[in-house]
Amino acid sequence: MRDRYVLGGAQLATMDPRTPYGLIEDGAVAVEGARIAWCGPEAALPQAYADWPRQDLGGRLVTPGLIDCHTHLIFGGDRAGEFEMRLNGASYEEVARAGGGIVSTVTATRAADLEALVAGALPRLDALIAEGVTTVEIKSGYGLDRDTECTMLRAARRLGAVRDVTVTTTFLGAHAVPAEYAGRSDAYLEEVCLPTLRAAHGEGLVDAVDGFCEGIAFSAAQIGRVFDLAAALGLPVKLHAEQLSHQGGTRLAAARGALSVDHVEYATEEDARAMAAAGSVAVLLPGAFYTLRESQLPPTEHFRTHGVPMALATDCNPGSSPLTSLLLTLNMGCTLFRLTPQEALAGVTVHAARALGLADRGCIAPTLRADLAIWDVTRPAELAYRIGFNPLYARVHGGKLETRR
Amino acid sequence: MRDRYVLGGAQLATMDPRTPYGLIEDGAVAVEGARIAWCGPEAALPQAYADWPRQDLGGRLVTPGLIDCHTHLIFGGDRAGEFEMRLNGASYEEVARAGGGIVSTVTATRAADLEALVAGALPRLDALIAEGVTTVEIKSGYGLDRDTECTMLRAARRLGAVRDVTVTTTFLGAHAVPAEYAGRSDAYLEEVCLPTLRAAHGEGLVDAVDGFCEGIAFSAAQIGRVFDLAAALGLPVKLHAEQLSHQGGTRLAAARGALSVDHVEYATEEDARAMAAAGSVAVLLPGAFYTLRESQLPPTEHFRTHGVPMALATDCNPGSSPLTSLLLTLNMGCTLFRLTPQEALAGVTVHAARALGLADRGCIAPTLRADLAIWDVTRPAELAYRIGFNPLYARVHGGKLETRR
Ligand SMILES: [Zn+2]
Ligand SMILES: [Zn+2]
Repeated sequence: MRDRYVLGGAQLATMDPRTPYGLIEDGAVAVEGARIAWCGPEAALPQAYADWPRQDLGGRLVTPGLIDCHTHLIFGGDRAGEFEMRLNGASYEEVARAGGGIVSTVTATRAADLEALVAGALPRLDALIAEGVTTVEIKSGYGLDRDTECTMLRAARRLGAVRDVTVTTTFLGAHAVPAEYAGRSDAYLEEVCLPTLRAAHGEGLVDAVDGFCEGIAFSAAQIGRVFDLAAALGLPVKLHAEQLSHQGGTRLAAARGALSVDHVEYATEEDARAMAAAGSVAVLLPGAFYTLRESQLPPTEHFRTHGVPMALATDCNPGSSPLTSLLLTLNMGCTLFRLTPQEALAGVTVHAARALGLADRGCIAPTLRADLAIWDVTRPAELAYRIGFNPLYARVHGGKLETRR
Repeated sequence: MRDRYVLGGAQLATMDPRTPYGLIEDGAVAVEGARIAWCGPEAALPQAYADWPRQDLGGRLVTPGLIDCHTHLIFGGDRAGEFEMRLNGASYEEVARAGGGIVSTVTATRAADLEALVAGALPRLDALIAEGVTTVEIKSGYGLDRDTECTMLRAARRLGAVRDVTVTTTFLGAHAVPAEYAGRSDAYLEEVCLPTLRAAHGEGLVDAVDGFCEGIAFSAAQIGRVFDLAAALGLPVKLHAEQLSHQGGTRLAAARGALSVDHVEYATEEDARAMAAAGSVAVLLPGAFYTLRESQLPPTEHFRTHGVPMALATDCNPGSSPLTSLLLTLNMGCTLFRLTPQEALAGVTVHAARALGLADRGCIAPTLRADLAIWDVTRPAELAYRIGFNPLYARVHGGKLETRR
């Protein structure tokens, strides 16, 4: 079914912020091509759409298609062996000696070609799609050399071509210092990271630029140099900041007008004020908080008080968050971070779109993309309430409707 | 495919305790009717099975079919509204005034007929089956009157008839005191719980008897009276004990030779000794621990020291664990309770079978039931490592092979 049709008999969670979930009971959505032509109470459906083919949804809930705005979905290998070693009592040193940690992922990613990276990521992408995801952000950052960083970004573009999903790419060359530059992080930035960013941008592979600002990674001053180049290239920025300690990354990112600042468990009220002033989204990543058994909660009250939009994402990665369920992420956002179910749903729709700088999606409204998820539930809160259950009935990506079963 | 066949080219996690996972590389399983005829390295396949039809599994991992040994899968309604109220800041009193808590589930369960209870539980059961579950325990306990408790157990039997899965039933009349007996728990036991157990047993509806021993439910002395009747009827017992506080339920259950004692966060080393002597399994329920944001970890070191087998289960229920993924339960067992991946897998196979008193399943071995799960992974630890990902390739229940996709 494409071109023109009406989805009727629906309950619409439009995510219009003026009412809870922007809920419209007995609603309808008119879809024309890849766009939403109209939405509202079905009784008010304009005459113009009355003779379009109509599918009745039997009272099902319709939300915007879900958006996973922070993933490291592409990587070589996995870290199940390291997971097992740790639980069997191995120390970090023993794990490192056995080649564990991010080094093992960098080695496996460098050894993989584009086809292998795509094949490895597809089951993870398919798991997200099966839960109603229509837009996924994917970062580089496991290559840490010019060829592999570019191969990762090409693999991300390829994923968007072989599946009905929108993929946005983020250059994360400043993710870690590779072994060959140990102790020479400035040299890594000058000799590898910045030239690779130029090259990848020249190839049209980069939608945004990210970094990891942490004691174990790069300082705020170093990230500032990466952001300088991003600004020169006209690319938006975002940052992994204040995850394990307070390093000042949030202040830097806000000063540069970052789309988002991610993790932010250790952000302060001052940071929240700066983010609000900059319009930066706080991207919360409960999967990493859960996996690392952290106890420092992100300052959600400060974000609420100062009006910082909060998004939620899987942070899918092989080390600290081998998580491929955005629905479970909703539940973790509520259970672990005490978001309300409405905040959680906004976090994977309207606020996630904003974290990616995408103004054409994230809500159900005329002229926006027809990216929708249709659910076998009666109330939006059920999406966050259930754990390990997928009530997706159908998904619409760019107007194209696919029923799940 | 039924009758006789060989699954070859497999990696077998037999769960034989003598080696890690009882792993056999390049293994094969010969299935005849509902039973396993032979298993071992394929190079050693006896001549007798050489001409049976052979399916090559291409190196896939085969485990025993998974067993969820503690669920409340059958109930009316859901508690998404209450979940949302709490996160929106409502107090327990406000939730109770709005009809929340277990009372709301009892009301909705009493209002449902057998067909409605079966229809409501089927999507949850199907979610478990889709992850390789071949045996599920289901408890009563949301009726708390004679008719509804029996209807719940009949619904459980019906579920086992309409799906390729083995359902075992547990009578849990001593789950809570219903509103009409508020403050008269002894009267509830005498007038409702015990007569209902007799009646349900007379109808062949009861495989085991359970209770909830807690300050907010029944005392150990009260549970003792339920167990007295179970013994008189020749039924095995198990108990929800030491979940929120130490009440002495474990000691009672062990003294009665309970199949299992469940939750047990507050169990002591003395309790672990008593369980080991009785041969009782400790059933750990990380989904409830996660949902209730508990901090008291079950005494896994005491269980290891004294040789108490540990099982893992979803505790699927609408209030404290709306969880329908046994794979996620494996991850939670490792991440939250620090089980090893091997302990976690034993906890949903060999030890879960023991918690249900089923000697004919839980391992891959000749003469046992051909209940198997076949996975698109290369190492058993991957089952616990991933979060929100289902690598099931196929499932065998009583010799019947169903490929997932
Ligand atoms: Zn990340
Ligand atoms: Zn229970």
